[in-house]
Amino acid sequence: MQTILILGGGKSSTFLIDYLVDTCLSKSRKVLLADLDLELAKSKLNERKNTEAKSLNIESEQEREKLISEADLVVSMLPAFLHPIVAKTCLELGKHFFSASYESDEMKSLKSEIESKGLFFLNECGLDPGIDHMSAMKIIHEAKDKGDEILSFKSYCGGLLAPMSEDNPWKYKFTWNPRNVVLAGQGVSRYIEKGDLKFVPYHQVFKRTETLHFDRLGDFDGYPNRDSLNYRKVYGLENIQTMLRGTLRRAGFCKAWDVFVQLGLTDNSFEMELPEGSSLKNFLNTFLPFNQDLSVEEKLAEAIPTMDFPTFEKIQWLGFFGNRKLPKTKGSPAAILQAILEEDWALYPEDIDMIVMQHLFEIKSATSIKKITSSLVCFGEDSVYTAMAKTVGLPLAIAVDLFLDKKIRLKGLYVPVLPEIYEPILSELSARGIHFVDKEEILTGTGSN
Amino acid sequence: MQTILILGGGKSSTFLIDYLVDTCLSKSRKVLLADLDLELAKSKLNERKNTEAKSLNIESEQEREKLISEADLVVSMLPAFLHPIVAKTCLELGKHFFSASYESDEMKSLKSEIESKGLFFLNECGLDPGIDHMSAMKIIHEAKDKGDEILSFKSYCGGLLAPMSEDNPWKYKFTWNPRNVVLAGQGVSRYIEKGDLKFVPYHQVFKRTETLHFDRLGDFDGYPNRDSLNYRKVYGLENIQTMLRGTLRRAGFCKAWDVFVQLGLTDNSFEMELPEGSSLKNFLNTFLPFNQDLSVEEKLAEAIPTMDFPTFEKIQWLGFFGNRKLPKTKGSPAAILQAILEEDWALYPEDIDMIVMQHLFEIKSATSIKKITSSLVCFGEDSVYTAMAKTVGLPLAIAVDLFLDKKIRLKGLYVPVLPEIYEPILSELSARGIHFVDKEEILTGTGSN
Repeated sequence: MQTILILGGGKSSTFLIDYLVDTCLSKSRKVLLADLDLELAKSKLNERKNTEAKSLNIESEQEREKLISEADLVVSMLPAFLHPIVAKTCLELGKHFFSASYESDEMKSLKSEIESKGLFFLNECGLDPGIDHMSAMKIIHEAKDKGDEILSFKSYCGGLLAPMSEDNPWKYKFTWNPRNVVLAGQGVSRYIEKGDLKFVPYHQVFKRTETLHFDRLGDFDGYPNRDSLNYRKVYGLENIQTMLRGTLRRAGFCKAWDVFVQLGLTDNSFEMELPEGSSLKNFLNTFLPFNQDLSVEEKLAEAIPTMDFPTFEKIQWLGFFGNRKLPKTKGSPAAILQAILEEDWALYPEDIDMIVMQHLFEIKSATSIKKITSSLVCFGEDSVYTAMAKTVGLPLAIAVDLFLDKKIRLKGLYVPVLPEIYEPILSELSARGIHFVDKEEILTGTGSN
Repeated sequence: MQTILILGGGKSSTFLIDYLVDTCLSKSRKVLLADLDLELAKSKLNERKNTEAKSLNIESEQEREKLISEADLVVSMLPAFLHPIVAKTCLELGKHFFSASYESDEMKSLKSEIESKGLFFLNECGLDPGIDHMSAMKIIHEAKDKGDEILSFKSYCGGLLAPMSEDNPWKYKFTWNPRNVVLAGQGVSRYIEKGDLKFVPYHQVFKRTETLHFDRLGDFDGYPNRDSLNYRKVYGLENIQTMLRGTLRRAGFCKAWDVFVQLGLTDNSFEMELPEGSSLKNFLNTFLPFNQDLSVEEKLAEAIPTMDFPTFEKIQWLGFFGNRKLPKTKGSPAAILQAILEEDWALYPEDIDMIVMQHLFEIKSATSIKKITSSLVCFGEDSVYTAMAKTVGLPLAIAVDLFLDKKIRLKGLYVPVLPEIYEPILSELSARGIHFVDKEEILTGTGSN
């Protein structure tokens, strides 16, 4: 009997749990699901065959060790900062480890010990990071096998709303951790374009957008995200001239969000304490220059010279120009803004979310330079079975299943950039309707010139 | 024999050392000067009566204790982050402590112990903070004694160049710690205007300027600096409607400096590694959007729509549009920018620096509202005997002298906002040519209406 321990039974674990629990029907397997909230874990498992709910107190070393010692393999769906302590316990107890989070420096430091103990640790096997790596590597490896050269690679991903649920001017609601959405883009973003290194500070990032197009969906804003330079090595593209990873929002979102960034409403570095009963308008006004002759709306228009009606409308829709009271008056500006948005950007039960991902390659062969646009669109089923939960959870669940079936036979620390990992995962995802549509376009013929 | 220990014999200690060494001629005193560089300490003392140079290794607890145990009183001119460890050793050994730096939270936590041991710890007794507190409190106390109400108080200070040394388009050179100048304004600035709390994020602060005027000197840019709200309590102005503390630069400086801020060249949060031999133009280009059809100058003009000729000229003068090589290629953008500016903004030996400070008060009496503009202008003597060293060092030296002469008889933790401290200091400063010129203007008569 193989025992899988899933840590964290929240929203993003839904598909992961169901996929792995289903494998218990035909294979000699058991799934343990541990969550802070035991009742939640029970309800997710719903007394299905070979499953057991556990309560989780991850901070207690003793409880953590007891729980992990019962399993052969651990899947962590906990917040990323907890992964190193889980991974260390797995290493001590000789258990394999799977996550959908970025491979941290702390995780990297365990590499040689993971290898020497013959364990398999797989990170970045969700959506972004995850499906992005796998689908890109497939194209990169195919090109390299033909002897072609990758000139340019840009990759964008966004967790958004399906068009029928885009019922506010932002065309956005929280389908993912609200805090991460409010703080998105903080720190510096780095990429390379035609051989030039580029660094974008936070307060420029929502201005530095590119328009991306998806068939039948229309236009999106893409902005550069984190450190794209690191991935040159991971993807084996050390000499690539253009490489950028970015995030997608609906067209117009970034311009309006940038108003908050410019004024300081997304700042998470200091605490404010506004008078009880303050309105959203008062909150906004604290970030505007004083002028007793102008209204808040007029001061805003003066402070943001590029303000246009679609931008104004988005801010107005949130209630910044009326008498709406702040849901909280103490905390960082980012925390106060998050509390406002959690009221306005909550999903209705019937809302459908959508994942969009697009890779843009320029590849030089002996005869031409061609552009490949590879696009993924995935819709959720409702506000519980979301596209986000599906695209984050399924790749991880499939990887676990393949590993336990010995179809992945690697030992060591990995992200899913090897064909042995990504080929069977992409194939199973495709069978479940998660697949990319590729378009090719010849930019220049190089044969006859 | 009273023994004064001065820690740090750098540029800003020049006047402090001379003032205190002079008092040894007539009073039963000894001055110990300790510096990392023993030869520097020796040269500053120049074998004058009752003086002794010491070498300083502040990190070694044993050496620190040995040195401080020889003194009755310690004046720390070390970098501010070292003050808490010096202050704690003073507390343990029962020595008085003086500094020109901001009273940190760590310093505040020692308050009750300082009191119970009957010691005197004085911080913020330099220029800014220091002379600003003292000169402002004099006006505030005079107004309060008359029963008047302070409606508004803005206070600006800058360490700049005397007009005859303003020989570059920035009208600026480093007369103070270059690192602090490059990082100035980082974090959020807070103030209150007509009762409205205002928060200014770093990337807005050099846009949020006010023009200040000094007789015979002309116009300056003032930008809000740090947390002005804290000082309401320190100054006993808890209910004041407008209070702002700011920094002065020559008119036009802030607009040009803001180009660096907007693009990210002052970012200190990440490390860059540019190719050896990169030029200033390459460095600038890494912060500009890619566009193969435009020159760096054109991309800059596009990225900064408010660019005008005076701004362009300042950046050009630094060598950003030529082939000048970077003095260093590794480090944070701020560190690389600092290295560039340290070459361009170095003082010539014959350069004269200048301190400007201006308080703007609106005070309501029974009969009128009057505006008081209180201005200080102080010139240096040369690039060693600077106005900065004079205005930072003299208030501290005078405070030490008054304390040892028992003219200040306080015990506890203080900043110089009490008449017992500031009156004799201001009077002695005035005797040495450091004094404010006040102008009064009646804004409205309230008596007859």
